Amino acid sequence: MLECISIIGMGLIGGSIARSLRKHQQVTHIIAYDRDTQALQTALELGVIDEIAADIKQAAQADVIMLAVPMGAMRSVLQDLQPHLGKELVLTDAGSSKQSFIDDVISVFGTMPANIVPGHPIAGTEKSGVENALDDLFEKRRVILTPEDNCDAEAFALVKSLWQGIGAEVETMSARHHDEVLAATSHVPHLLAYALVDCLGTMNERVEIFKFAAGGFRDFTRIASSDPIMWKDICVNNEKAIISVLERLEKELHGLKQHLQNDNGEALEKVFRRAKSLRDQFVVGVEV
Amino acid sequence: MLECISIIGMGLIGGSIARSLRKHQQVTHIIAYDRDTQALQTALELGVIDEIAADIKQAAQADVIMLAVPMGAMRSVLQDLQPHLGKELVLTDAGSSKQSFIDDVISVFGTMPANIVPGHPIAGTEKSGVENALDDLFEKRRVILTPEDNCDAEAFALVKSLWQGIGAEVETMSARHHDEVLAATSHVPHLLAYALVDCLGTMNERVEIFKFAAGGFRDFTRIASSDPIMWKDICVNNEKAIISVLERLEKELHGLKQHLQNDNGEALEKVFRRAKSLRDQFVVGVEV
Repeated sequence: MLECISIIGMGLIGGSIARSLRKHQQVTHIIAYDRDTQALQTALELGVIDEIAADIKQAAQADVIMLAVPMGAMRSVLQDLQPHLGKELVLTDAGSSKQSFIDDVISVFGTMPANIVPGHPIAGTEKSGVENALDDLFEKRRVILTPEDNCDAEAFALVKSLWQGIGAEVETMSARHHDEVLAATSHVPHLLAYALVDCLGTMNERVEIFKFAAGGFRDFTRIASSDPIMWKDICVNNEKAIISVLERLEKELHGLKQHLQNDNGEALEKVFRRAKSLRDQFVVGVEV
Repeated sequence: MLECISIIGMGLIGGSIARSLRKHQQVTHIIAYDRDTQALQTALELGVIDEIAADIKQAAQADVIMLAVPMGAMRSVLQDLQPHLGKELVLTDAGSSKQSFIDDVISVFGTMPANIVPGHPIAGTEKSGVENALDDLFEKRRVILTPEDNCDAEAFALVKSLWQGIGAEVETMSARHHDEVLAATSHVPHLLAYALVDCLGTMNERVEIFKFAAGGFRDFTRIASSDPIMWKDICVNNEKAIISVLERLEKELHGLKQHLQNDNGEALEKVFRRAKSLRDQFVVGVEV
């Protein structure tokens, strides 16, 4: 069992990592640090963590540091940590965009230290805050690690085993590739859900629109209830890949609009069939 | 209790209406007709209906006729029914676009008969077929009736009481208004889900995209598993209202793309906050 982990950022993800490590007895001592002292106090009271770090220096005294802060806070947290990091320590993160994390590390350290292992658990809910943390959030979920070429094999193995120890399936790929895949499956869907809800909110019929929304709409827009700051951060940290997917989607929507304008039901049906077949095919493998 | 209802179209909606009427003891005898004789056979074997109509003429021998066929089949079914319809009979439908239904009726009858009451239950699942019919699909769901000015008060009251009798909440509005509201809450979200899945299917990373899709993506695209023919029909029957919402959405997405290109996190966050606050506000009132 790991002696001590330090979790920096005590929100839904940081809290769920703590709860999961505890449940699966992966670590003896969990210490946490956050600018939001109320979140730390809540985490301590709920038994999510064992100890609140008095400052960032104390937070750096651990075998593993897990950064679970919003992407926009990564660089400043790394700057604060940098003077206190020992070489034997392993540092990893749970951020949703990986190239920007690596860029942040390099901007602070001048190079990519071998004991830093970038990671991203493909899990979450639209809720925020340590009070919503779950001890099974990562079970049967995928975690993508994006180690650079010089990554230390032991550091990588340790991070991998931590995630596996709380039930996750670990995959490895390049940061660039991770960002492209996630733009498509997560970042653009979030943008779309926000865009749709915001756009309907400007219509004259807005009250009735929301009144008559059926279950499909509820599911479709669930992710529009996600944390705006977190998603703003993700968007500006993965803008290139997101714009590329958005532009594909714009073309696709434009094509559908043309089919509608030309009353071309056959062409619409062809697209719908293709999409349904794709979704029915892949959804079998996706856990709820 | 109503003596006899005839349900034309024995799919998910027709079957769920039958199951619900039975459960709530709203009708003594349920007769059904469908071009798909297998669906009728299944409905009879599952106890969803009491009798299979031998032909459309027999299907017209009832107190109420419920049309639950795809929008694209409405006109031809109305044509077949027209010679057999008595004035004392009440005819209603469960189609997802209402102006096109009224246009179909007028094209067949030359005018809007007073005993025809257009309707639309705001309920459904992404599944199809009578074998997936549910006896509680309409409970606490809204049903929108869009009677024309000359609609017979008794016919309207009868249809309203049928829906209320199976647990639905009935609202009344104009067909045009219904179509605008539904384009926003249902038709465009379906188009978007189909468009996104289809668009991702063309990307090089398609296998990984679907492999790493998280719960948010699954929910977001659930409606892309809906019946392509039904949705093609809905789209071509409500194209004006759908195009109008699509164009609003195109503008909104274009704006978000510009914020991304300009690295304007503040503007993105503002949109996300507005959308989250709208969704959090209305979702409280929406049943799962």
